[in-house]
Amino acid sequence: MSKVIKGGTIVTADRQWTADVLIEGEKIAEIGENLRGDEVIDAEGAYVIPGGIDPHTHLEMPFMGTTAAETFETGTFAAAAGGTTMLVDFCLPGEDGSLLNAIDAWDRKSKDQICVDISYHMAITGWSEKIFEEMASVVNERGINTFKHFMAYKGALMIEDDEMFASFKRCAELGALPLVHAENGDIVAELQQKYMEMGITGPEGHAYSRPPEVEGEAANRAIMIADAAGTPLYIVHVSCEQAHEAIRRARQKGMRVFGEPLIQHLTLDESEYFNKDWQYAARRVMSPPFRSKEHQDGLWAGLAAGSLQVVATDHAAFTDEQKRMGVDNFGMIPNGTGGLEERMAMLWTQGVETGRLTPEEFVAVTSSNIAKILNIYPMKGGINVGGDADIVVWDPKLGRTISTATAKSILDYNVFEGMEVSASPRYTLSRGDVVWAAGQNSQPQPGRGRFVKRPPAASASKALSKWKSLNTPRKIERDPMNIPAGV
Amino acid sequence: MSKVIKGGTIVTADRQWTADVLIEGEKIAEIGENLRGDEVIDAEGAYVIPGGIDPHTHLEMPFMGTTAAETFETGTFAAAAGGTTMLVDFCLPGEDGSLLNAIDAWDRKSKDQICVDISYHMAITGWSEKIFEEMASVVNERGINTFKHFMAYKGALMIEDDEMFASFKRCAELGALPLVHAENGDIVAELQQKYMEMGITGPEGHAYSRPPEVEGEAANRAIMIADAAGTPLYIVHVSCEQAHEAIRRARQKGMRVFGEPLIQHLTLDESEYFNKDWQYAARRVMSPPFRSKEHQDGLWAGLAAGSLQVVATDHAAFTDEQKRMGVDNFGMIPNGTGGLEERMAMLWTQGVETGRLTPEEFVAVTSSNIAKILNIYPMKGGINVGGDADIVVWDPKLGRTISTATAKSILDYNVFEGMEVSASPRYTLSRGDVVWAAGQNSQPQPGRGRFVKRPPAASASKALSKWKSLNTPRKIERDPMNIPAGV
Amino acid sequence: MSKVIKGGTIVTADRQWTADVLIEGEKIAEIGENLRGDEVIDAEGAYVIPGGIDPHTHLEMPFMGTTAAETFETGTFAAAAGGTTMLVDFCLPGEDGSLLNAIDAWDRKSKDQICVDISYHMAITGWSEKIFEEMASVVNERGINTFKHFMAYKGALMIEDDEMFASFKRCAELGALPLVHAENGDIVAELQQKYMEMGITGPEGHAYSRPPEVEGEAANRAIMIADAAGTPLYIVHVSCEQAHEAIRRARQKGMRVFGEPLIQHLTLDESEYFNKDWQYAARRVMSPPFRSKEHQDGLWAGLAAGSLQVVATDHAAFTDEQKRMGVDNFGMIPNGTGGLEERMAMLWTQGVETGRLTPEEFVAVTSSNIAKILNIYPMKGGINVGGDADIVVWDPKLGRTISTATAKSILDYNVFEGMEVSASPRYTLSRGDVVWAAGQNSQPQPGRGRFVKRPPAASASKALSKWKSLNTPRKIERDPMNIPAGV
Amino acid sequence: MSKVIKGGTIVTADRQWTADVLIEGEKIAEIGENLRGDEVIDAEGAYVIPGGIDPHTHLEMPFMGTTAAETFETGTFAAAAGGTTMLVDFCLPGEDGSLLNAIDAWDRKSKDQICVDISYHMAITGWSEKIFEEMASVVNERGINTFKHFMAYKGALMIEDDEMFASFKRCAELGALPLVHAENGDIVAELQQKYMEMGITGPEGHAYSRPPEVEGEAANRAIMIADAAGTPLYIVHVSCEQAHEAIRRARQKGMRVFGEPLIQHLTLDESEYFNKDWQYAARRVMSPPFRSKEHQDGLWAGLAAGSLQVVATDHAAFTDEQKRMGVDNFGMIPNGTGGLEERMAMLWTQGVETGRLTPEEFVAVTSSNIAKILNIYPMKGGINVGGDADIVVWDPKLGRTISTATAKSILDYNVFEGMEVSASPRYTLSRGDVVWAAGQNSQPQPGRGRFVKRPPAASASKALSKWKSLNTPRKIERDPMNIPAGV
Ligand SMILES: [Zn+2]
Ligand SMILES: [Zn+2]
Ligand SMILES: [Zn+2]
Ligand SMILES: [Zn+2]
Ligand SMILES: [Zn+2]
Ligand SMILES: [Zn+2]
Ligand SMILES: [Zn+2]
Ligand SMILES: [Zn+2]
Repeated sequence: MSKVIKGGTIVTADRQWTADVLIEGEKIAEIGENLRGDEVIDAEGAYVIPGGIDPHTHLEMPFMGTTAAETFETGTFAAAAGGTTMLVDFCLPGEDGSLLNAIDAWDRKSKDQICVDISYHMAITGWSEKIFEEMASVVNERGINTFKHFMAYKGALMIEDDEMFASFKRCAELGALPLVHAENGDIVAELQQKYMEMGITGPEGHAYSRPPEVEGEAANRAIMIADAAGTPLYIVHVSCEQAHEAIRRARQKGMRVFGEPLIQHLTLDESEYFNKDWQYAARRVMSPPFRSKEHQDGLWAGLAAGSLQVVATDHAAFTDEQKRMGVDNFGMIPNGTGGLEERMAMLWTQGVETGRLTPEEFVAVTSSNIAKILNIYPMKGGINVGGDADIVVWDPKLGRTISTATAKSILDYNVFEGMEVSASPRYTLSRGDVVWAAGQNSQPQPGRGRFVKRPPAASASKALSKWKSLNTPRKIERDPMNIPAGV
Repeated sequence: MSKVIKGGTIVTADRQWTADVLIEGEKIAEIGENLRGDEVIDAEGAYVIPGGIDPHTHLEMPFMGTTAAETFETGTFAAAAGGTTMLVDFCLPGEDGSLLNAIDAWDRKSKDQICVDISYHMAITGWSEKIFEEMASVVNERGINTFKHFMAYKGALMIEDDEMFASFKRCAELGALPLVHAENGDIVAELQQKYMEMGITGPEGHAYSRPPEVEGEAANRAIMIADAAGTPLYIVHVSCEQAHEAIRRARQKGMRVFGEPLIQHLTLDESEYFNKDWQYAARRVMSPPFRSKEHQDGLWAGLAAGSLQVVATDHAAFTDEQKRMGVDNFGMIPNGTGGLEERMAMLWTQGVETGRLTPEEFVAVTSSNIAKILNIYPMKGGINVGGDADIVVWDPKLGRTISTATAKSILDYNVFEGMEVSASPRYTLSRGDVVWAAGQNSQPQPGRGRFVKRPPAASASKALSKWKSLNTPRKIERDPMNIPAGV
Repeated sequence: MSKVIKGGTIVTADRQWTADVLIEGEKIAEIGENLRGDEVIDAEGAYVIPGGIDPHTHLEMPFMGTTAAETFETGTFAAAAGGTTMLVDFCLPGEDGSLLNAIDAWDRKSKDQICVDISYHMAITGWSEKIFEEMASVVNERGINTFKHFMAYKGALMIEDDEMFASFKRCAELGALPLVHAENGDIVAELQQKYMEMGITGPEGHAYSRPPEVEGEAANRAIMIADAAGTPLYIVHVSCEQAHEAIRRARQKGMRVFGEPLIQHLTLDESEYFNKDWQYAARRVMSPPFRSKEHQDGLWAGLAAGSLQVVATDHAAFTDEQKRMGVDNFGMIPNGTGGLEERMAMLWTQGVETGRLTPEEFVAVTSSNIAKILNIYPMKGGINVGGDADIVVWDPKLGRTISTATAKSILDYNVFEGMEVSASPRYTLSRGDVVWAAGQNSQPQPGRGRFVKRPPAASASKALSKWKSLNTPRKIERDPMNIPAGV
Repeated sequence: MSKVIKGGTIVTADRQWTADVLIEGEKIAEIGENLRGDEVIDAEGAYVIPGGIDPHTHLEMPFMGTTAAETFETGTFAAAAGGTTMLVDFCLPGEDGSLLNAIDAWDRKSKDQICVDISYHMAITGWSEKIFEEMASVVNERGINTFKHFMAYKGALMIEDDEMFASFKRCAELGALPLVHAENGDIVAELQQKYMEMGITGPEGHAYSRPPEVEGEAANRAIMIADAAGTPLYIVHVSCEQAHEAIRRARQKGMRVFGEPLIQHLTLDESEYFNKDWQYAARRVMSPPFRSKEHQDGLWAGLAAGSLQVVATDHAAFTDEQKRMGVDNFGMIPNGTGGLEERMAMLWTQGVETGRLTPEEFVAVTSSNIAKILNIYPMKGGINVGGDADIVVWDPKLGRTISTATAKSILDYNVFEGMEVSASPRYTLSRGDVVWAAGQNSQPQPGRGRFVKRPPAASASKALSKWKSLNTPRKIERDPMNIPAGV
């Protein structure tokens, strides 16, 4: 049975035009005027955009002694309700350290629950011969072309510079892309201790112990290591000018570095941690923490300038009760906030409606860019004939007030509570299925989502690899006569 | 009669894939596998890319007391031979100062000659009520949405800051885009005089009198003026880090500034002016002059980073004899070099083959980006159903040595003489017509080219306009009690 | 009769130590322990510092149709009361355009009035053969080694780029130092008109029409011109990061550029212009206007980092009545604020007491640096045997609340009104005379001040001159065989 | 017996003037005209400058399995012959890890040998309670206010970020200044292995494995850690723009960071490692390695701009035989070159004679600045009454060709071999003794040198400490009603 999305203005990363979209099965079959299908999806007065891709979520993540509350079912349904049709979750190795076993574990959690498509980034939280070997299977068999590295969370996920270098080099060989969480874990740990000793036990201590300089330093370090290893680099949750500046500096030298700000950092600021209500502040605890307005301005400019490419959420939802684990010690507050459901609407409202971003840029940073970086474009991230029909009918008049009460997320609060957004999805389609229709009491369809395999060797990786091989240092040939005997 | 381009790998600004392209009449009718058409164009082993767009040429330009030798016929045919299917020429007002008359004059010169499509940028070389009025007609009736401003060529084309501001403001109102030639004309004139007085009369004096600082200053100034006037800005022939740095700085603040390096500045350096053969050096005289290797590295990095968007040529061809007008005074050497025919192959060879650029980036900077900036995408600059069939079958094995003897340009020398390129067009199609076929003795088809009208209000202009209107300073309302009487 | 300053801690730009200072006549005769003199000046518990030098005042300046209210008598006495023992006033050519006549006119105004020493900067407000000639006399006969250039005040003081280049080149020849007021006068004029047309007639329009970008642009331009002309450059009243950034960029390339923030810009911000009381806001109207807090932070950091060297005041005092000339048009409000009397105490309080500056840096930026730049060190600006006994006994416990009532300035208001300072001069000595003693009802001593001649060719000028002459571009010698005949 | 230095032009960091200098015993007794003394030292036609201070030497250092060949006797005598009257050597803990024992060991080596004064920097090569405790004694009892931290030499001297933070924090408490060798040791080790595996065993591999990015990263990291710990920071041997840029960035934010380029990096470049003669190249092996010309330009500009403050040598002399330890593996070549004797003359010739530096800046960067940083000014580093008579009569006409044959260093080669210098010391005085007289067959006077104690809490440390304490984050006070119970 075919569907036709009629009467909308298609917006992609490179243009806007009026056309209908014909869907056959899971795929886009035709784009043009006056198309017909078995079913008509009304897009009059609306935009037709690629479904959002959120490349940074932590569903049901075991972390800091608890497990993130958002499930693959609620998370993927909340995503769909917000206009996001794919997410990439972080897969963490378990106690045995095996990457492949971790993927199996993640598959078990996700496969019967997911309402839209997903993929994983694989975390490298240590280094060994086994991990070196498994990385090849992860890439070539499991279809995961990204590896995450934590420079923070000392004593837990954090790895050292030599391990990062080894893993990055392995990524370069495999055509995979390394990701980093950039904060200097050593210094964070020291500052946490310092502020606790000063009696600062509340959520403001979280912000104080993770200042922008600590993030900027780590970003800068990861960039150097990636350059030495000969691989592009993707820096997750870029929250501040210090990290952004490091990225700009690298790019201006021709290094291929990508930066991902979060919708939270674009729209919320550090004053949230100074709220007199502990629970209010604790709900906002995430790493890196929210920053001041000047940092926000920098991030917005970076999205328009192209020095930052992707807007994500780092969706890691912990309930009020979970947050209270850190009531006496901010360091024990589980790190994470929601955003999966609100990302698209918040970015549209504060980005496109203000003129900071063009509609095309909105599409680029919510789906197309990351699809290219992840090497799944144009299957995902575009409105292309032959591509997956992951499409949102985006209604610029369908405003709402963000509220926990109406949100689909499992979470019992919302960091955007009470904020007005001017647009929302009228319909969300995942591979041709309507998974969300505004006002029509849509329900989750767990198990219909699929795992998306991603091939290695994206175009930027190939180009960098060529450049590095042509520009590798050369041995100086010396006449043996000019080399003395040793001692 | 339909044509199908078969067996190639299509490369656009966002991806590569294997597909055939069906052309009906002037348009792309279908893209897919196993397409059939009346005529088959073989693209086996080749890339299928959008025809190049060179947004910066000066054909038959009256300048410095002579007229550029390249005609609209030879120029557009040389373009086609090199894989470029559209160029944008600079239209200069004549003695009467009328913009509309200038367009008429340019039309008379071009219309029977052009072998591929063209458009014009309109130059603003003074300021008056009449020009203010005519600008609206230029945009809305003549389909020209770009206005060029010369900050150099004092006593001739140069305009002052207040004139630039007035024109930029008018551009903002009209949704047009201002362009600048960024060099401080006052200081260039002073330095020209200084070096002449020192007895430096040769072409090296041209380079000395136009140092990078003089360009960087003007770029920086134009950016400030554009920001004050509330318009995006496009800086032509960005040759040096000083100008590039000003662009980066602006973009990092959210200003919408575009930068265009030339293929010459990317691949040739200032040592050319120090050649012991006067004629050799004089042939390379253009403004801005070639720069040192460090500047080149910066420009290449900018193309990959997105801080520079377009590669052009500033094709302004003066013969050896014309160059000799300045034999006693470098300031009298007509400024300009060729490049229209070599741009695509030089950029591919030194960019893609080295890994500096991805194939997608090559397409972006040779056609797609400028098409978007000029607001003619996807009619031009892409491989899209419904778009013009301006297509090049780009053969990465069809190497050649650049040589005046084999070039189609009218010029009697070539600044790239003797350089090897690794790729060339196998076929060039302009709106569905094969205008160039390698090795098949293609001939110019003057008059088949058309003038391309370009509508105002590109997406970036609209977004900036919205931002500026939301962020305009507000009057402080004061109680009359708090305002004293005047004196 | 000798004097000895006893018991204090001497602070210079390079150190602090406890010693007495013996003064004989106008000069420092000895520095050491247990010195004796005819008269003892008690410095117990206090610092002994070089008298402040304010290199930027406009006393009795004819400007914008009126004359600055502060006289040479009240100004120099207020200076002394605040710890400043020398000021440099701007001498403006009159209608005849003669520099020498202007100096005579300034001398007539100042010589019987001044209570402490002064010098002049000579303004270049146009260009002619006569000015070129007179500049040599100004430097070599009148002892003025600095020339001021206004890039703003279009239609009045402003000059064009080619005039600036000519004057800067002349400065280079004479070993004099060019100064600039850096704002793009063309754009200021356009923005003034724009905001007036929008109905923004109040003082906030002054700030809106002179945004930081307009200042940064002009600073950047002046730097380029100075570099081309081969001279160091001094930029007065650097108020914002845009200008500061241009200075840093220049210095990082080895250019010799100095920057002077004002005490007002360091301590007051743009919100002053938004005050609901027109008169309050109008009192703060000066150019450049006050900026936001971020700019202030940058200026403070620059003083510590050495990218900015001098803190001045631009003291130009207009009464409330004079300010009311612009009640209907912010562009008619005479530009200027006071500060001469408060500079030292404000800088100490907000700089040294906060740890932003060391005491040595305080001395450097209030006297020693400018004395070196003006080439009068160590006669002025230090505590050196043989140097002028321009000394302040600076009492770090002598706090006060700034108030018009107690100030010595002629002005009927104070932009620092109500602010607390933690330190004040206990005694101020000018060439050995006590011209101010706290709490002792000191009275002005008009006519005792002298004009200080300043020789050209400061050390930085000489070094730059050497560098430029060694690095000037060289002619390429070509065999006549390799030069064609002309056309 | 008194001495008078007659007829010279005194140059200090802030001025030049003609005067005689009277020395009584070890101290400067008077500065003035027509002074008399028992002995006259002729300074006609010469400059009289503070003796150079080289704050970075490794005499008799045990390193990489051998011991640096330069002894305290030969080193201090070579220093004197070159115009340097004080050096600061790096004291490394031995196997027991004790700082105090290390000082004793260093004292034993130095005390009977030194011909001029010395001091030590204490190295922190690990972290423990004992080191924490000993640091107080090092500062308060032994008079050492600087602690060195190696971010490279993995497996040997290198320490980790948390150890650096702990040590820096301890420095802040003690008013001591941390120093860092900034290279990322992890990545250096990885790159060494990589290039060895590629068969690059020669000295060029040394340069390849320590690229500028690796240094810039570490500098940036150390700066962040110092900022977090609340202490100024001194970065030794800044060789490249990446590190310099990190320093500039920090200073522009108000951080107190100092940078020390070496005379080698200012004057020699990386092409030295590509010499076809292994021994020639191996002699130049030091860390960081020499860089390209662009980096040199940056360093020179930094000295004039004030972003870099000190020129040192890192004098670590290994003989040809010692260098041959690495004949099969560049990683085994002992790191170090000479320079102690040539620093002053090379810097004068390539700095002052070219106009890059003023004579005052020459003095500042060779002695005064480091004396202030080390908190021993004006006892050392100036020409001040009461200060040590460490003085050089610097003859700007006493040129020479640098040659191993005539050098006083023990080393059997010289990295500056064959270079011309235009100036040399006519006399070098150490605390009033002539320890070098040109052409008079001066001999070493071992044992006359003394250890110089340096007090903590230099002015910059105190200011920063004040700033940090005023700006420390504050606890948010919350009503217990607003804090939930824990879980
Ligand atoms: Zn993270
Ligand atoms: Zn995360
Ligand atoms: Zn041009
Ligand atoms: Zn042009
Ligand atoms: Zn001014
Ligand atoms: Zn002024
Ligand atoms: Zn070292
Ligand atoms: Zn060392």
